[in-house]
Amino acid sequence: MSILVVGSIAYDSVETPYGKRDNALGGSTLYFSSAAGIFTPVNVVGVVGDDFNPDDIAFLKTRQVDFEGMHQAPGKTFRWGGKYHENMNKRDTLFTDLNVFETFKPDVPQKYRNTRFLFLANIDPDLQLDVLSQVNNPELVVLDTMNLWIDIKRDALEKVVRKSNILILNDEELMDFSGDDNLVKAVRKIAAMGPSAIVVKRGEYGALLYSDERFFYSPAYPLEKVVDPTGAGDTFAGGFLGYIASKGKTDPATLREAIVYGGVTASFTVEDFSMERLKKLDRPQIEKRFKIMREMVRF
Amino acid sequence: MSILVVGSIAYDSVETPYGKRDNALGGSTLYFSSAAGIFTPVNVVGVVGDDFNPDDIAFLKTRQVDFEGMHQAPGKTFRWGGKYHENMNKRDTLFTDLNVFETFKPDVPQKYRNTRFLFLANIDPDLQLDVLSQVNNPELVVLDTMNLWIDIKRDALEKVVRKSNILILNDEELMDFSGDDNLVKAVRKIAAMGPSAIVVKRGEYGALLYSDERFFYSPAYPLEKVVDPTGAGDTFAGGFLGYIASKGKTDPATLREAIVYGGVTASFTVEDFSMERLKKLDRPQIEKRFKIMREMVRF
Repeated sequence: MSILVVGSIAYDSVETPYGKRDNALGGSTLYFSSAAGIFTPVNVVGVVGDDFNPDDIAFLKTRQVDFEGMHQAPGKTFRWGGKYHENMNKRDTLFTDLNVFETFKPDVPQKYRNTRFLFLANIDPDLQLDVLSQVNNPELVVLDTMNLWIDIKRDALEKVVRKSNILILNDEELMDFSGDDNLVKAVRKIAAMGPSAIVVKRGEYGALLYSDERFFYSPAYPLEKVVDPTGAGDTFAGGFLGYIASKGKTDPATLREAIVYGGVTASFTVEDFSMERLKKLDRPQIEKRFKIMREMVRF
Repeated sequence: MSILVVGSIAYDSVETPYGKRDNALGGSTLYFSSAAGIFTPVNVVGVVGDDFNPDDIAFLKTRQVDFEGMHQAPGKTFRWGGKYHENMNKRDTLFTDLNVFETFKPDVPQKYRNTRFLFLANIDPDLQLDVLSQVNNPELVVLDTMNLWIDIKRDALEKVVRKSNILILNDEELMDFSGDDNLVKAVRKIAAMGPSAIVVKRGEYGALLYSDERFFYSPAYPLEKVVDPTGAGDTFAGGFLGYIASKGKTDPATLREAIVYGGVTASFTVEDFSMERLKKLDRPQIEKRFKIMREMVRF
């Protein structure tokens, strides 16, 4: 089954303790597709400027990713710059040049509208609502967001949450959105708003799934070196939803496996800058780490 | 099989967002025994002042805990005061009155010296070395410590580490002691010093075991309310080593189960002040959460 993803396409300038990259491929949509495309076909809706180089996404076209919904607008592609601190858990945004993304209005091509699986990557919740109005009853809507929207567009965000099946958040966003600093109470509050499952990303501590009043925990794959954390969250979502769509099932066992696939996929992303490691990633490499993950929690 | 534990016995004054307790039972040895005593007999070596009320530990005597090695000295019992911040992850020490603990010199009774299992609770590493010189080749030495000793008594601490089989640390102590902020590199560095296993306590994120170049991860039991985190680490160690000693085995499967028992036992500790919850704790309650933990990581 294919997935529709709507979000950003960007050129990132990133500095970490391991080095620096300027104008490297980035954006939630492309990170998501790099990961999900290993599992299942992906259809992309997004916008780029006239400076966008199609060669940069050639590797995604061979990976079942369709770009008919990628619109080219006059102007420059969205650019983001960030610098990570020594321990990689914190970063400073150096600049955000929205460029053509500032007037982005998602236009879902007719042939994508009957999608069963939809990933609403982190964009303005009003645009996410707009996307939802263009698709025909998808079976599974997975939603990502960020603190900015929790702070300045809470009402619109709550509307999207009520229309979504699975919400993916990190620890900090969970506390901010729920207003509760206890994990158990926080996920229960959000579940009461409608989503049947909540996924909490906890970085080096792994991820958890809350669904049907049960918790499932998955550790992070242990890495000796984290080179660049950019895109980890979006590739987590890509591995997660990519696996679900590839199975065409949303039962609890599939969701649990999908959490592990999400974590494994993200573990590759952070091993190099931009999408460098993802470009070389294939399913057998993912399966190898998946097996190790199973062994890591067995008792 | 019985365990020998050497460490502190204290009266704690603790303030958390849920309330305040003055002169409540505390100290690493007693927290450890409360937990381990549910699994197996425990022999205690420690010191109390002439103000110590034996009624306070009556519940431990019915729990297979032997106090022949608890020495009473003239003066007051060790007292510690602390205040936890809103999110419970940080605390300020308000006072540390060592009292009789200042001149504590462990004296292991003859009948304890052939112990197979030894827990060196967090005390001055020179005293830990002294204890090691008094026991006859224990099969398993489990070591706890704290930042203070890493900072001011590093040489002595390294000597104890080289003589220990399992080192238990929290995230922060691991980074401090290894000098590496990457978890994988940090545990490998410490394993190279001698211990065959390293246990890393990560609070609300659970715990991990590194042994034979493999990682085992266990989540924390999800709690709606953490009332007082004091003693969580010592009861983790108590559940961990208590289970190992009860089985009389140190194979990898037993160590993994022991990590889960440690986490489960600690999850009860923090649900009330001092040892209030531990006093009412029994093995069936522990088994119930152990089963849930198994379900929480199954995929």
